[in-house]
Order: sequence, then structure tokens, then C-alpha cells
Amino acid sequence: MQTLLEQLETILNKRKLANPETSYVAQLNAKGLNKILEKIGEEATEVILAAKDAQQTPANNQEVIAEMADLWFHCLVMLNNLNISQAEVMQELARRMGISGLEEKASRKN
Amino acid sequence: MQTLLEQLETILNKRKLANPETSYVAQLNAKGLNKILEKIGEEATEVILAAKDAQQTPANNQEVIAEMADLWFHCLVMLNNLNISQAEVMQELARRMGISGLEEKASRKN
Amino acid sequence: MQTLLEQLETILNKRKLANPETSYVAQLNAKGLNKILEKIGEEATEVILAAKDAQQTPANNQEVIAEMADLWFHCLVMLNNLNISQAEVMQELARRMGISGLEEKASRKN
Amino acid sequence: MQTLLEQLETILNKRKLANPETSYVAQLNAKGLNKILEKIGEEATEVILAAKDAQQTPANNQEVIAEMADLWFHCLVMLNNLNISQAEVMQELARRMGISGLEEKASRKN
Repeated sequence: MQTLLEQLETILNKRKLANPETSYVAQLNAKGLNKILEKIGEEATEVILAAKDAQQTPANNQEVIAEMADLWFHCLVMLNNLNISQAEVMQELARRMGISGLEEKASRKN
Repeated sequence: MQTLLEQLETILNKRKLANPETSYVAQLNAKGLNKILEKIGEEATEVILAAKDAQQTPANNQEVIAEMADLWFHCLVMLNNLNISQAEVMQELARRMGISGLEEKASRKN
Repeated sequence: MQTLLEQLETILNKRKLANPETSYVAQLNAKGLNKILEKIGEEATEVILAAKDAQQTPANNQEVIAEMADLWFHCLVMLNNLNISQAEVMQELARRMGISGLEEKASRKN
Repeated sequence: MQTLLEQLETILNKRKLANPETSYVAQLNAKGLNKILEKIGEEATEVILAAKDAQQTPANNQEVIAEMADLWFHCLVMLNNLNISQAEVMQELARRMGISGLEEKASRKN
């Protein structure tokens, strides 16, 4: 069974080839890497602003969640554009945090 | 069985309370939200630079993977600092991309 | 006689109070600080992308100039929004680079 | 007589050729464009954080001034690295804001 990140990746792979007039993902890929990277810069800034506002007003956490979802979405689109799988990033993250590849593989198989 | 993101979150929850002299995560939390957000801005910039270099030299994909792992790591530290679970961000992402909560739950149970 | 930065500041001071429907500066101020800071994040990203492209294709310098003008413009709007004069930033810059206040003042008087 | 921006540019031109062990500007140029662009991303983020803090606590304006000086400094280093004069950016800014080149020239001559 796929993890949610794997499902998202499968969807992005399909939408990349869709019609840019009806699919936002296809549109971003048609505009090219610079457009996707601009979005990463924009969304990172919006995450930062939402977090600062949440620091003052905890009710702002919903805004942080929405902006972080935007940031991760555009990160996945970027990886997809460069033909890099999210699994490679997750394995690097796991390696750094001392979760062994085997444990990780096991966690995904079960 | 936990997904890798859930395992990472569990580790961050523990390290947040560790000694700032021996744990980078504890150190970031001790320095506070601004320090964590500075890192998000820095790592987003490094992702952008690595992606531009990969566009010229595909062998640079390893650098993109390393920088993206850095960015996601600091995003997880930030969510943790604000007591937001990564699951809330993933559910928002799934919702936007049309993966129903049920499917998502099923994918994580199996 | 005013320096160009001083003239720009004078114009921004006037436009801040203009009709948001006809003035972009008034519109940014009406939307508030977050909107202005989002633009700084966006424009900084666009400067970075234009510089990377100029590294490959020097003819791209025009793009760098255009994006840097955008970044500085929104920086001036932000200072203005916070009632900080550009002169305070320039004096700090001069101080750090070892140009004394007196020399600076002299340079502007003559 | 030179404007302050022109004086800063003259200093950066000299320091670019200095010993990287004693000059920060020479060091940045020796490390290359990516290092300089990383600093622009970092300083833009610090400007944003300082501005958000100043919104809560006006006494924080000093921090905004310091971070903006950092951002503009690294912008000037970047332009210098790409052999672009700050005058080209200022002229573009003036053009957009409706200050004619002649007025600008006049303002600098007097």
C-alpha cells in the first residue's frame, strides 16, 4: 500500500502530462523550472509570515497549515519536474535522523 | 505501523526536550521561532540554487536532494515548535489533490 | 538638491496617501505589511533566478537590473510603511563600510 | 561629487580585488555567485522577520535598519560580481517612478 506522499507523487506524474489549460500542475511544468522555483520562494515567505502571526495569535495555526501545504506541494512539483522522487528526499532525511533504511522500508511495507 | 514522516515527528518531539548542547533540534527550539524561520528562508534559497544548477548539470540532483531534505527537516522542526502535526499538513495536501481522508487513512493502515 | 533615493522617498510618501484604486503604492499600504513583505520575498527570489540565468547568459543582465529595481522598490515601500527613512539605512551602510557621516553629508551637499 | 551609493560601489570594486583572508567582500567573490545569492536569501528573510517584530514592537526599527543595510550590501556585492552598476538599477527605478533621467542627472550634479 502506498504512503500518502507516494500517492501524491503518482498524481503529479499524471497531471504533468495533462492539458495546461485545465491542470495547474501541467501549467507550472509548461512555464518551466523558474516559475516553479518562484512559487517555492513565495510560499516559503508565506509560511514565515503565517508562523510569525501564529506566534502572536495561536488561532493562526490554520494559516500555517495551509501555507505549509502550499510549500510542500510546490516542492513535490519541483522534484517531479527534475525527475527526482520524493522517496530519495525522505531516505536522505531518514538517514540523517538515524532511522535506518531497513526500518524505513519495513515501515512502508507494513 | 508508522509512516516515515510520523517516525521523524516522534524523534523531533523527543529531541525538542533534549540538551541544547548536544541536540541541534533542542538548540533550534531554545533559540526560538525566528531562528527556525531563518533556516527555512536559507534552505529554500539553497533548494532554488541547487535546482538551477541541476538544470545545467543533471549530476547536481544529489545536491537538490540534500537541500530539499534540509528544507523539509526545518519545516518539521517549525511545525513541532508551533505544536502542529505534520499529519495536519499532509491531510490538507491530500484534500487539495482529491485524495479522500478515507483513502489516506486506508493507505496508512495497510 | 535631493539624491535620487530621497526623491523616490518623497514620491512614496505622497503615493502612500493616494487612492488605492489608482496607486499601486497606496494599494500595497492598504493591504498591509504582510502583503509588502510577501513582495520582498517574491522579488528576492526573482533576483536570485535572474542572477543564475545571467551567470549562464550575460545578456540576461537586463533581467537582473529589472528584478533588482523591483526588490529595492518594495524595500523602500516597506521602510515607508514602517516610517523608517532610507537615509537611516544608507547611513548604517556607510558606517559599516567606513564612510564617515561627515564625508557622506559633504557628498550630498555638494 | 559622488552619491553615497557611488562611493559604496567604488569601495566594493576595490575590495573585490583584495585578499579574501582579510576582506569579506573579496571572500564572497572568491566563493562565487551562489554564496552571494545565498546571503541575499538569508538577509531578505531577516528583513521580513525584523519587520514583523517591529510591527509588534516599534522599538525594533533599529533591527529593521540593520537587516535592510545587510540586504542592500549583499545586493551591491551581487551587482558588482556580475559587473552591473548600481546606477543602472537606480535609473530603472527612477524611470518606473516617473523621474526623468534629466532630472535625475541634475539632482546628482548639484
